[in-house]
Amino acid sequence: MNTPLQIPARTIMTPGPVEVDPRVLKAMSSSILGQFDPSFTSLMNETMEMLREVLQTSNHWAFPVDGTSRAGIEAMLCSVIEEGDKVLIPSFGRFGGLLTEIAERCGADVHLIHCEWGKVFEPNDVIKEMKRVNPKVVAMVHGDTSTGRVQPLKEIGYACREMGVLLLVDAVATVAGTEVKTDEWMIDGLITGTQKCISVPAGMAPLTYNDRIEKILLERKSIEKGLVSSEQQRLAQKDRRIQSNYLDLSQLQDYWSPARLNHHTEATTMLYGLHEGLRIILEEGLANRYDRHQKNEQALVAGLEAMGLSLFGDKASKLPTVTCVTIPEGINGDSVRSMLLDDFGIEIASSFGPLHGKIWRIGTMGYSCQQRNVLLTLAALEAVLLRHKAKLHVGEGVQAALDIYKQSEKVEA
Amino acid sequence: MNTPLQIPARTIMTPGPVEVDPRVLKAMSSSILGQFDPSFTSLMNETMEMLREVLQTSNHWAFPVDGTSRAGIEAMLCSVIEEGDKVLIPSFGRFGGLLTEIAERCGADVHLIHCEWGKVFEPNDVIKEMKRVNPKVVAMVHGDTSTGRVQPLKEIGYACREMGVLLLVDAVATVAGTEVKTDEWMIDGLITGTQKCISVPAGMAPLTYNDRIEKILLERKSIEKGLVSSEQQRLAQKDRRIQSNYLDLSQLQDYWSPARLNHHTEATTMLYGLHEGLRIILEEGLANRYDRHQKNEQALVAGLEAMGLSLFGDKASKLPTVTCVTIPEGINGDSVRSMLLDDFGIEIASSFGPLHGKIWRIGTMGYSCQQRNVLLTLAALEAVLLRHKAKLHVGEGVQAALDIYKQSEKVEA
Repeated sequence: MNTPLQIPARTIMTPGPVEVDPRVLKAMSSSILGQFDPSFTSLMNETMEMLREVLQTSNHWAFPVDGTSRAGIEAMLCSVIEEGDKVLIPSFGRFGGLLTEIAERCGADVHLIHCEWGKVFEPNDVIKEMKRVNPKVVAMVHGDTSTGRVQPLKEIGYACREMGVLLLVDAVATVAGTEVKTDEWMIDGLITGTQKCISVPAGMAPLTYNDRIEKILLERKSIEKGLVSSEQQRLAQKDRRIQSNYLDLSQLQDYWSPARLNHHTEATTMLYGLHEGLRIILEEGLANRYDRHQKNEQALVAGLEAMGLSLFGDKASKLPTVTCVTIPEGINGDSVRSMLLDDFGIEIASSFGPLHGKIWRIGTMGYSCQQRNVLLTLAALEAVLLRHKAKLHVGEGVQAALDIYKQSEKVEA
Repeated sequence: MNTPLQIPARTIMTPGPVEVDPRVLKAMSSSILGQFDPSFTSLMNETMEMLREVLQTSNHWAFPVDGTSRAGIEAMLCSVIEEGDKVLIPSFGRFGGLLTEIAERCGADVHLIHCEWGKVFEPNDVIKEMKRVNPKVVAMVHGDTSTGRVQPLKEIGYACREMGVLLLVDAVATVAGTEVKTDEWMIDGLITGTQKCISVPAGMAPLTYNDRIEKILLERKSIEKGLVSSEQQRLAQKDRRIQSNYLDLSQLQDYWSPARLNHHTEATTMLYGLHEGLRIILEEGLANRYDRHQKNEQALVAGLEAMGLSLFGDKASKLPTVTCVTIPEGINGDSVRSMLLDDFGIEIASSFGPLHGKIWRIGTMGYSCQQRNVLLTLAALEAVLLRHKAKLHVGEGVQAALDIYKQSEKVEA
């Protein structure tokens, strides 16, 4: 007991949590500031400003919830959805299931439509269903890491706005790794997480929402006992009160406003990390960052296919930040993953539910998304698969990936 | 925009967040491990084991919720309380108000009793009320920082157990700073936070609960969509389902069990910090740590009184980790706090609701609770009060505190 921390070196090629830039780790070792210290509240304001830029929005509200990604998802859903509200959830993977689960717990009347895992929806099919169901809210995942697919949202966003339906989007797997245009796609509320392409440790869920959402929050707002003297004021909206206190966006936005109405104690060190992580993203530039993610994905895919492995799922909707590989017949997927971790210090992921044991998932996200990591992963995976007696085109995987990098060096030169 | 982090040096003498041992900050700058990496899951297990020791419990379940203290409080309340359950809340400050607010949002039938701010309850008065109301749950704060009081819980705990009532306790302000005996006081569920006497940055809420609570969790348990194929299994407990997914202890305990059923992505860096913070506590030893908190409190109190200031509230129930000072007549409390921060880099706190502008609150918690900090705070406070034209016994505050420290050195020698 009382063993000192011993953190082995790891190359993390999963869909999160991913490696973190040493600059972020250093920022997170800064000393503590009080939550109402002006030096701290100005960090909060700067973080909001940088988040707006990364989320491509002019929304006033853009701040992190102090919890991991699903805390942000639940904050958005439980603050917007009221008992009996119709919510349409087009689900194409596990995280559509999570939206369903959370919406049900908020008392929603959930209308769930599925598509086969490995595909996404034709936007028109969703729009047709919207017209049939006439929901208050459409809740959708943008990139579902469980199947490695990305759902086009633009047409759905336009249709929602036209029909007066609110569009809430889980963009945990995509923000800062591939294009996410909150305003242009007419997304009303969008949630992301820190531990994927933003490349900051898990523990915060940045989100943003527009005036249409804020209007609902203000209608449902209640003030905490002990902060106002009037019980009448406190209980004004009792019937429509948001069911969570911790995840109540109407209270959180007061804490993130100049009023700084005390709610929780902001997670100091996590905010330092997010602040530095957002700075790094904006220094790189969103377009460059998306290009980097795409180039490394291309190299990884080329390498895997040249090695003789097949990718899972429909090509057109492949999520650029997660690559799903079909586990070859006769190979024990978990044994391969363990050997990769134990002997090479490289981590890749399995999947959930119906896909467990059928596919591996390789992430190329944030700081983990770099040439060195892709090449070493391909080399190590080949070696491990050979040890597992898989039939491969030996030596070809890494060469194919190198070809992509060398080509792109030429283009850039 | 894009300003690099600039963290000024601060002496933080508030009731949290408080300063953090540089060892903890260093641990938190370690690189990331995947959430199912055996090196990480063994850190999770070690953290559980150390938490049991710090919380003085042999409960199996002792783990942090990924959110600030009130996330832990809400997790406990919403996992235990069902629609219509009678909950007795004896409240002696703002954080009794928070328990009320959260319990109401869980659908509880709340029976609230108050005592005057600055006092606590006679245990017998609570027990009488329990007999009258016959609640399923008594929810109480142990140390309420808003008034600086600590509530004796032992007799109430015994009575609850005898009557078959569950006792849930918010011990955010006391754990690791003053005695908290979870098992001996027969507390069924106890929640704390990292940013006070545990002295780790805000962002985690360690909690523990016994078999009586676990029984309720198992009755209410539901499994997440996408993790089981059977809808029947998933919805078995639909009517009694816990209203939050993120704060659902029945799911969280599966994640903290050897099954490691995927829920959220554990906040990697926060866990590193908590692990190191708990090691430091156990190295110091709980008894030594309580003594240190008491000695520094004594020195602070002696200094403030010698200076000519009066303490707020009933002496017998003073919380050792927070000292409330009556703001002298004619002095602007916020102006004093600003000058302390701006000119001396020392932070003390104001209070909430009816006490705002009437008292200052000075914390002596965790790593902040040290001789140097107490002496510098007294010296700086005297200087600032003189600038505000307060009438004081000039020079006497620091001397009185020094006397306490020198005496205790003699006793120890």
